[in-house]
Amino acid sequence: MQGTFYVVGVGPGDPGLMTLKAARILEKCDVWFAPSAFEHGESMALNIVSGEVSQKGKKILTHHFPMKPVHRDKEPDPEVNGAWQKAAKIIVDCLKAGSDVAFPTLGDPAIYSTGFYVWETLQKSGADIKVKIIPGVSAIGATSAAAELPLCLGDERLIVIPATFENGQMREVLAHSDTVVFMKVHKVMDKLVKLLDELGLVDNAVLVERTSLGDQKIWKNIRDTVGKDIHYFSTLLVRKQ
Amino acid sequence: MQGTFYVVGVGPGDPGLMTLKAARILEKCDVWFAPSAFEHGESMALNIVSGEVSQKGKKILTHHFPMKPVHRDKEPDPEVNGAWQKAAKIIVDCLKAGSDVAFPTLGDPAIYSTGFYVWETLQKSGADIKVKIIPGVSAIGATSAAAELPLCLGDERLIVIPATFENGQMREVLAHSDTVVFMKVHKVMDKLVKLLDELGLVDNAVLVERTSLGDQKIWKNIRDTVGKDIHYFSTLLVRKQ
Repeated sequence: MQGTFYVVGVGPGDPGLMTLKAARILEKCDVWFAPSAFEHGESMALNIVSGEVSQKGKKILTHHFPMKPVHRDKEPDPEVNGAWQKAAKIIVDCLKAGSDVAFPTLGDPAIYSTGFYVWETLQKSGADIKVKIIPGVSAIGATSAAAELPLCLGDERLIVIPATFENGQMREVLAHSDTVVFMKVHKVMDKLVKLLDELGLVDNAVLVERTSLGDQKIWKNIRDTVGKDIHYFSTLLVRKQ
Repeated sequence: MQGTFYVVGVGPGDPGLMTLKAARILEKCDVWFAPSAFEHGESMALNIVSGEVSQKGKKILTHHFPMKPVHRDKEPDPEVNGAWQKAAKIIVDCLKAGSDVAFPTLGDPAIYSTGFYVWETLQKSGADIKVKIIPGVSAIGATSAAAELPLCLGDERLIVIPATFENGQMREVLAHSDTVVFMKVHKVMDKLVKLLDELGLVDNAVLVERTSLGDQKIWKNIRDTVGKDIHYFSTLLVRKQ
């Protein structure tokens, strides 16, 4: 009998922020297919899982997904697409061999997760596969908790956006929402601080680096980040009220 | 010694979607202060917790918070504010008596949670209180998983908004984002279906009722919801691509 493929959100970093369901599914699956952002590097998702679930008896496959930007209206970079195709092939082979396969993914699969690209690649491959997506705690929720700032209350609107847009677009987004969460900020903090300062919003912003992890850092004055080397696993929250 | 107040996200409904950390904190706390949307009604958050953590030996206080709209730029309704003040007073008394108090809240505290209002009321009361916010799986993440549609990928932007705005504002929001999540939709589905149909987006929408629960219902054709009695615990996802 063919196995089931589980895309499992494992939360933002603290292994305790995995769900009971995620832990149970990982315990049950024979194969863990873990994404790694760096070639021959560790898998952050695998590290999270290993904090709570034993690797004993598991077949663990770590797969490198290049950290290159993907623009949804353009063809993906061949290297990126190649990694998805290769992953899909390996996963299908495991499923056909009768194994259940878990794909642990950082945070919540709903939000900028490689898991959904792999899922999409599997769908397009035409293979008849049973897939389940298990939601997880998102980095944006964990950032809100760490900063002690809600993302939305009452009739407020929330926008989540990668900080890789032109200033004009970011101004517009900031004008039209109560809270903006900027993802992928680590390389553009200097520019963001400048923009938020211009808009009088710099004191409404909090940056959380490595949210929920032991070395989590909360920057309540984001001016202090200027010129600093910020970890790529950082989220900026701008709350107007 | 004074106790700690924990605002604990318990996820969207399936008790298995509680985090390991949430379950451990609830096990540790003497007092559970559980919100109820209806007077003398059950607490959905308490039901979720009870699916995984024993109530044995716990002091359980269920507190009614009226489900009235809160507009962040206006003074809250006196009945709503009264419920926050009363809750804060009870919680402070328990903490002063040395108990740790857990406030289980549906989904993720970051997103439209009563927990943050209570937290805010406690902050304003001037009482010196140790508070921790524990993020949870959000209803929006669980809706994405159930609908098998990502909220954002690549360079996409996501907007989360209550569906209680004027059509003009909702049109604008739909024009300026890749995915829109509409919350609090159950009373306005007919109006939303009409608007999305006009904009050619009705086939890009999925409604999930009672996400992650045993009686979860996924409406892939939202035209079928017109004239129906939709559960108040429903989320609508509109994804353009």
